[in-house]
Amino acid sequence: MDITIIGAGGVATSLAHALLKAGHQVVQVYSRTGESARLLADAIGCSWTTNLAELTPNSHIYIISVNDDALTQINTQLLSLPHLADSLFVHTAGSVSIDTLTTARRGVLYPMQTFTRSRIVPMAQVPLFVEANSEADTAIIERLAHSLSASVMRLSSADRQWLHVAAVFCCNFANHCSTLAAGILESHGIPFSVMLPLIDETARKLHEIHPVAAQTGPAQRGDTQVMNKHLQMLNDNPNIQNIYKMLSQSIQNSNL
Amino acid sequence: MDITIIGAGGVATSLAHALLKAGHQVVQVYSRTGESARLLADAIGCSWTTNLAELTPNSHIYIISVNDDALTQINTQLLSLPHLADSLFVHTAGSVSIDTLTTARRGVLYPMQTFTRSRIVPMAQVPLFVEANSEADTAIIERLAHSLSASVMRLSSADRQWLHVAAVFCCNFANHCSTLAAGILESHGIPFSVMLPLIDETARKLHEIHPVAAQTGPAQRGDTQVMNKHLQMLNDNPNIQNIYKMLSQSIQNSNL
Repeated sequence: MDITIIGAGGVATSLAHALLKAGHQVVQVYSRTGESARLLADAIGCSWTTNLAELTPNSHIYIISVNDDALTQINTQLLSLPHLADSLFVHTAGSVSIDTLTTARRGVLYPMQTFTRSRIVPMAQVPLFVEANSEADTAIIERLAHSLSASVMRLSSADRQWLHVAAVFCCNFANHCSTLAAGILESHGIPFSVMLPLIDETARKLHEIHPVAAQTGPAQRGDTQVMNKHLQMLNDNPNIQNIYKMLSQSIQNSNL
Repeated sequence: MDITIIGAGGVATSLAHALLKAGHQVVQVYSRTGESARLLADAIGCSWTTNLAELTPNSHIYIISVNDDALTQINTQLLSLPHLADSLFVHTAGSVSIDTLTTARRGVLYPMQTFTRSRIVPMAQVPLFVEANSEADTAIIERLAHSLSASVMRLSSADRQWLHVAAVFCCNFANHCSTLAAGILESHGIPFSVMLPLIDETARKLHEIHPVAAQTGPAQRGDTQVMNKHLQMLNDNPNIQNIYKMLSQSIQNSNL
């Protein structure tokens, strides 16, 4: 398919590379800033623009990967472009309803993964969640999704929001736990990298064991002595101390 | 070396298998309950006992892998056994000082990993932290550790406590984030397994990027709209809602 990409951040970059690899034609990249548009367009080998009015009219799908605020603005601008009135626009956001787009043809292609601009994530194992406002367009987006990943599911906007909340816990909050650990270690001269085997195993065992059964640690075994010692050690950092207290309590509640 | 193992839980089980694989002789397993002592002894092919007075006198190292409360009790009992007065005892706990043991020869061999009894964890990549109350015994424990893992470090009891706090964040709290996500997903008919590629990538990228730079999500990009929507969705569950609020706030503080 011929694809236009609107946005040049982490998701847009990984998607663009995956589309290219799957044999699609990425014909154009749009971004508000010329710098980032050019960077991605050069990597992909296509043209770029910073002006939505200059979008080519003939792509099969226009993928919009921008932050949630920019999405509303871009939608408004697209409505005023008659040469794109029949085009299919899809956004890639987890928490945004399909109807945040008000173009005649609209849909969602949500890759549930954590994207960093500097790191191209292979799309083959990424679960892709698909939705559109017509069966015909759902099928088109689904066909595109199947060409990118082995894991494609249809999901309503309402359920996708729950998925996104869950992803915030599994990814964003879990990563922040590593940030807090890194701070603790580095202030005691221990490199964060010693944690990597533990972090790997914590992820790996979830492929075999449900997280409730995989839980270990002082809170899980009700070891008040160790928890109190840890809380005392964290006395100088009330923020981390409160997080320790709240998560330990929540682990103990899950045990009941 | 000839090794006696005191304890038959997750750490003891994985250690026993790793010792066997590295060519050591596990000569005996002790556990308070005959059932668990026998189970591990049978798997390893050695004798077992539920009576500390029956411990064989000639092992090079006695590894004590029990919970922190039991450790103190076992230490007291060991002091009353003259046939073990010259033996080297090491415990495997992250948060327990070497001097919780008061035997003449004492040390620590802390494998920083998450252990579940049902799952034998290969020790080759597990960081092992070593300490003893004499240079000679530190060298003995260190030699044993090197035969098990490529990652061996000497660490004082004080620094090991900080390591353990950090491990609670990276492993126990990160896993609990998955538990909370599983609850959210399962109550909306979405299987937890869709999260696995995201969890894997969250762990994998930390091999290349510091957790502060790896952070993504609504809190990291200051997306108040999405955060408020998520908090509203979690209205029926004040525990999860508070955790969402506190961790999002902490991510935003780390961004400053």
